[in-house]
Amino acid sequence: MALPIRANVKRLFQFIQKHPSSRRLFCARPCVERKEPPGGRVFSGIQPTGVPHLGNYLGALESWVSLQSQYPSVLYSIVDLHSITQPQDPALLRLNILDMAASLLACGIDPETSILFQQSQVSEHTELSWILGCLTSMPRLRHLPQWKMKSKQKNEGSVGLYTYPVLQAADILLYKSTHVPVGEDQIQHLELAQDLARIFNNTFGELFPEPRALLSSTRKVKSLRDPSSKMSKSDPQKMATINLTDSPDDISLKIRRAVTDFTSEVTFDPEARPGVSNLVLMHASLAGCSVEEVVGQAKGLDTGKYKQLVVEAVVQALTPIREEIDRLREDRGHLESILARGAVRARELAAPVLKEVRHRVGFC
Amino acid sequence: MALPIRANVKRLFQFIQKHPSSRRLFCARPCVERKEPPGGRVFSGIQPTGVPHLGNYLGALESWVSLQSQYPSVLYSIVDLHSITQPQDPALLRLNILDMAASLLACGIDPETSILFQQSQVSEHTELSWILGCLTSMPRLRHLPQWKMKSKQKNEGSVGLYTYPVLQAADILLYKSTHVPVGEDQIQHLELAQDLARIFNNTFGELFPEPRALLSSTRKVKSLRDPSSKMSKSDPQKMATINLTDSPDDISLKIRRAVTDFTSEVTFDPEARPGVSNLVLMHASLAGCSVEEVVGQAKGLDTGKYKQLVVEAVVQALTPIREEIDRLREDRGHLESILARGAVRARELAAPVLKEVRHRVGFC
Repeated sequence: MALPIRANVKRLFQFIQKHPSSRRLFCARPCVERKEPPGGRVFSGIQPTGVPHLGNYLGALESWVSLQSQYPSVLYSIVDLHSITQPQDPALLRLNILDMAASLLACGIDPETSILFQQSQVSEHTELSWILGCLTSMPRLRHLPQWKMKSKQKNEGSVGLYTYPVLQAADILLYKSTHVPVGEDQIQHLELAQDLARIFNNTFGELFPEPRALLSSTRKVKSLRDPSSKMSKSDPQKMATINLTDSPDDISLKIRRAVTDFTSEVTFDPEARPGVSNLVLMHASLAGCSVEEVVGQAKGLDTGKYKQLVVEAVVQALTPIREEIDRLREDRGHLESILARGAVRARELAAPVLKEVRHRVGFC
Repeated sequence: MALPIRANVKRLFQFIQKHPSSRRLFCARPCVERKEPPGGRVFSGIQPTGVPHLGNYLGALESWVSLQSQYPSVLYSIVDLHSITQPQDPALLRLNILDMAASLLACGIDPETSILFQQSQVSEHTELSWILGCLTSMPRLRHLPQWKMKSKQKNEGSVGLYTYPVLQAADILLYKSTHVPVGEDQIQHLELAQDLARIFNNTFGELFPEPRALLSSTRKVKSLRDPSSKMSKSDPQKMATINLTDSPDDISLKIRRAVTDFTSEVTFDPEARPGVSNLVLMHASLAGCSVEEVVGQAKGLDTGKYKQLVVEAVVQALTPIREEIDRLREDRGHLESILARGAVRARELAAPVLKEVRHRVGFC
């Protein structure tokens, strides 16, 4: 039962946020020298994989939306520079960037409240990344998740894949971000950003706050075909993943075919009964109620009948999002102008920080 | 006797340059698609180590000066981004950048003819470097000279040091450079740039010419204290290196103390008599005559007396350079404005190339 723990962690971070004096506990030196953005600044990035799936939505995007009202300054970046660490089809990448923008907007990212931008449109990211790379030792990156997971054999990936976490650190530090929503699998990458903030500050004088993790939801949605693995865009089984633009018929078909087990009763036990528990978790999250409430509603239903309730909850939650994505996709110019405006605003924050970095390093 | 071979290589490259049709021999595909700069474009970079020494001057800078009249488009960059792959003192780096600019101008780099600029002022370098890094496999860099020489133990350097040759490739390709003056120790790095041009062209369509080496002088000036090693800025023995700003007295002292051998006659035999041969080579190069002529002039002199001739030749050649460096150093604003103007001109060339790269990759 991870939810209560997660809620506590969230509350702890909210406490830290609301009582800035206690934040000093996390700082090695007085924060004032670093000129942190007052009230904190959130940064996060998402790769342009096109329209996100339900796992992305419940695992990250939903909390991105709520962070907009909790922090005075929020940046969300479509990190296309990261995406090319794996081979991409250029035409598809171009489309996926706009689809991701449309999806983020449809999920509730407000481009007036947040700065929504495309990473490659802000040249300061790679500039800071180069400088931070000169402060990063080679072995430091060898055991980080992106390399261990994605380089098929030892040392077989690209230089971009290996150095990816340094660019990620630059993404965060460039805006003097104080809080970064991350999944558990990204904690080590955030630690690198913290280390690099410290190393830079120690070498060139206080400049960067050490960014802190906002652990995003532990509601990890699983594959509908194999509930032992995460729901994933790249799953070869089409029935395993619900995309935000799936039609009600598609959603219905996928959920009806979802792997459960031979027990007909609906219970929540992710270890012993991962399939049905995955459905309960999706259902509870989208309906905005607790797991216990959902299990209560399912009392007397077998898993086959219960799936119909899940279908209804998913369709109800996703229909307005799907319709909004479809509407936004129609107007490519509008999406491009939102990203262009976001890039201008991001650059306004990034440029003075990079200017200071360049000065500290000795370039000017 | 390396000189005749070098002269032949130079003539070969001059032939290639003068007869563009024969250049096709070196191209895998018709060059026209790549829109090479007509007549070719030279790019080279030098780290901001402050005032160069005589070895830099005779080994590279002198030929940089003459390339200005041989090619219609020439770029010389003070590569400060490369310099931070080793720890730098920021205040010293700042000074060294301007000292290098003053020195290049004093040696004869004309900022109207050439584009003289500071690498970090053109953000496109790191942007292209990131993209090329995603096309470079990790093992490809492991055996390149910069890593083998400078990482003290296996894998002990920074990420910047390891990926340095990728940034170097970006420096070159960003301007669609066709010719790169390099020392022999840089040939492998240029091969990486050629490979990356090919890989990019094969993946995303023809865009980059494959840059060709202009082997710079084989006149490698040796340390005055240990003629088995190169003259070097970082030599701990101050008497080993003649800097372009050394006073006539300093020059005289260093040459009089230069290590020779126990034979008093002056001959040119770099293998058997490296010390005296080093003096003969310096003398011939600076006086603009052949080694044989110099040995002829020295007939009947012992090495002690001959050293006085060398002192005169070095002082005569370096005095106008030293005086010009001193004059230029007085006006920091002037140097900064030359570099700023160079950066504007470099960006004018780089921006459309990077824009095209970004489009090909799928970012826009």
